[in-house]
Amino acid sequence: MTASQAKVVRFHETGDASVLKIELEPVQNPGDGEVRINVEAIGLNRAEVMFRRGAYLETPQLPSKLGYEAAGIIDAVGKDVTEFKPGDRVSTIPGFSMSRYGVYGESAVVPAMLVARYPEHFSARQGASIWMQYITAYGALVDVGGLKKGQTVVITAASSSVGLAAIQITKILGAKIIATTRGAKKVQALLDAGADHVIQTDNENFAGRVMEITKGRGAGLIFDPVAGPFLEQSAEAAARGGKIIVYGALDGRPAIFPLFASLIKGLTIHGYTLAEVTLDPARLAKAKEFILEGLKSKSLVPVIDRVFKFEDIQKAHEYMESNQQIGKIVVTV
Amino acid sequence: MTASQAKVVRFHETGDASVLKIELEPVQNPGDGEVRINVEAIGLNRAEVMFRRGAYLETPQLPSKLGYEAAGIIDAVGKDVTEFKPGDRVSTIPGFSMSRYGVYGESAVVPAMLVARYPEHFSARQGASIWMQYITAYGALVDVGGLKKGQTVVITAASSSVGLAAIQITKILGAKIIATTRGAKKVQALLDAGADHVIQTDNENFAGRVMEITKGRGAGLIFDPVAGPFLEQSAEAAARGGKIIVYGALDGRPAIFPLFASLIKGLTIHGYTLAEVTLDPARLAKAKEFILEGLKSKSLVPVIDRVFKFEDIQKAHEYMESNQQIGKIVVTV
Repeated sequence: MTASQAKVVRFHETGDASVLKIELEPVQNPGDGEVRINVEAIGLNRAEVMFRRGAYLETPQLPSKLGYEAAGIIDAVGKDVTEFKPGDRVSTIPGFSMSRYGVYGESAVVPAMLVARYPEHFSARQGASIWMQYITAYGALVDVGGLKKGQTVVITAASSSVGLAAIQITKILGAKIIATTRGAKKVQALLDAGADHVIQTDNENFAGRVMEITKGRGAGLIFDPVAGPFLEQSAEAAARGGKIIVYGALDGRPAIFPLFASLIKGLTIHGYTLAEVTLDPARLAKAKEFILEGLKSKSLVPVIDRVFKFEDIQKAHEYMESNQQIGKIVVTV
Repeated sequence: MTASQAKVVRFHETGDASVLKIELEPVQNPGDGEVRINVEAIGLNRAEVMFRRGAYLETPQLPSKLGYEAAGIIDAVGKDVTEFKPGDRVSTIPGFSMSRYGVYGESAVVPAMLVARYPEHFSARQGASIWMQYITAYGALVDVGGLKKGQTVVITAASSSVGLAAIQITKILGAKIIATTRGAKKVQALLDAGADHVIQTDNENFAGRVMEITKGRGAGLIFDPVAGPFLEQSAEAAARGGKIIVYGALDGRPAIFPLFASLIKGLTIHGYTLAEVTLDPARLAKAKEFILEGLKSKSLVPVIDRVFKFEDIQKAHEYMESNQQIGKIVVTV
């Protein structure tokens, strides 16, 4: 980065990781209520892969930037920004348009209300591995799900950064955890991360195993980014009065609404994104308090799987799509 | 009815209305916690049509009785029943197995906890037109839906007894009502019943009209027994954070779960039956209190569409399936 130019990642067409290009753009000045961050590390999310493919909730305005999570040092603040000053070490809270504010770059401008300080003993890599995973999981489990001690929660696709965050938050709440992963490879890592039981969805009957583990009662809460035909299995595995919180569409196929199971059990199926929390200042403040407290007490510990260099952003995306990771993929700038 | 024998309706195979047979059976004695009712009137419900067809949540044990709602006079009480005595005028609260307790007959034995007195000035016909419709609607709108003054609720298939009950309850709560009906025939009746707007789903764009009426905000609560492909239209018509309470499967086709709309708007879709209320004594007591208060103050008034004779039970079912009714179909015994 020079004083006037910065490298940013952009894509001019949707597609596989090869569409990601590193380009130079003039360093932007923050507008009213915005801050500029000298980026040190970027946290990758599945959302960005979906966005790059044109399959995300937000449709990219091409050419488009991308990226939700960056950690770095504030180097300029816009008008009306009083909470932050140049020199503050912060990371971003996903809650903005990626086309407009995408943070994959040496410099990023974002709304000040979607920026937060992180614990002082944290590296920038750790700082870029906080808000997406913990707000997503906290909002679903606590805010929307009302998870209580002694309940059983199913966390599917549990090796993702959000999945591991959900395991850590469930531990704090004192509920029982059934984690899922497709094959045998990640089972031990999920047990080590705190799961009470791990179901291999490629090799085991998911609903049958949940019923066995819960002695026929089913799971009170299921936190799932898979959807597709798996939704019907979730309904089968849910307890009477259970909640299924769907927060993604990893399985791109249509999901049939499990009408009869829902009627018989009085199920609730909730489509959830962390925007429910980030767009509501009161709920966001509560989430941040819970998370910062957890980080300080070390009951919440970001798990970083692998670190890539900025130049290798395509490789980092390809690695995410290969589903080998357990935890967060980070890119250093 | 003789002292020892009573006519009851039974079916030996599932199918159209012609499977319903009037047969004689010995008058049964109430068991522990049960009461016997000398039936004066029977309230018909869509649930019984679905049950007769073999398409209901409960699978009939053939030969099977059927029927959820009867009003009459208690003529015997089982052991441990202290709340009721012979001579009490009561009606039944749906919450039991129809195969076991079906009330289509001259005499019916039901659990005492699913029986309630109704206002003294009510006829038996009115008494048989209370609990299914008002508990179903109250449970969905108030208990599960948390409907508040000023919100907008969509009530689909609104000419049914439950639909009209939902309109009356919504009026009490001070929320705005958009009712739907398929064609033009019932529009005026629904406006007369209290709907603020009526949408003809066969002739109008449902979601478009809801958005127009709500000035682009959408409906906060949608109370729907149709499901099938209509579920996606409901999601389109729902407001951010909206709830869709599905309480039936009138459209037998599969319903696609509206994943993207749910994620974008943070929608909740809840499969609902009144069992959520009737199986929970505390919630049932609250519902009964609200309903009895409404009946006394005449803000809740059961709408009876047509009365059939017991001998014409097949015709009464056929009439329900013809979808001509506005309100309750009752059979006198």
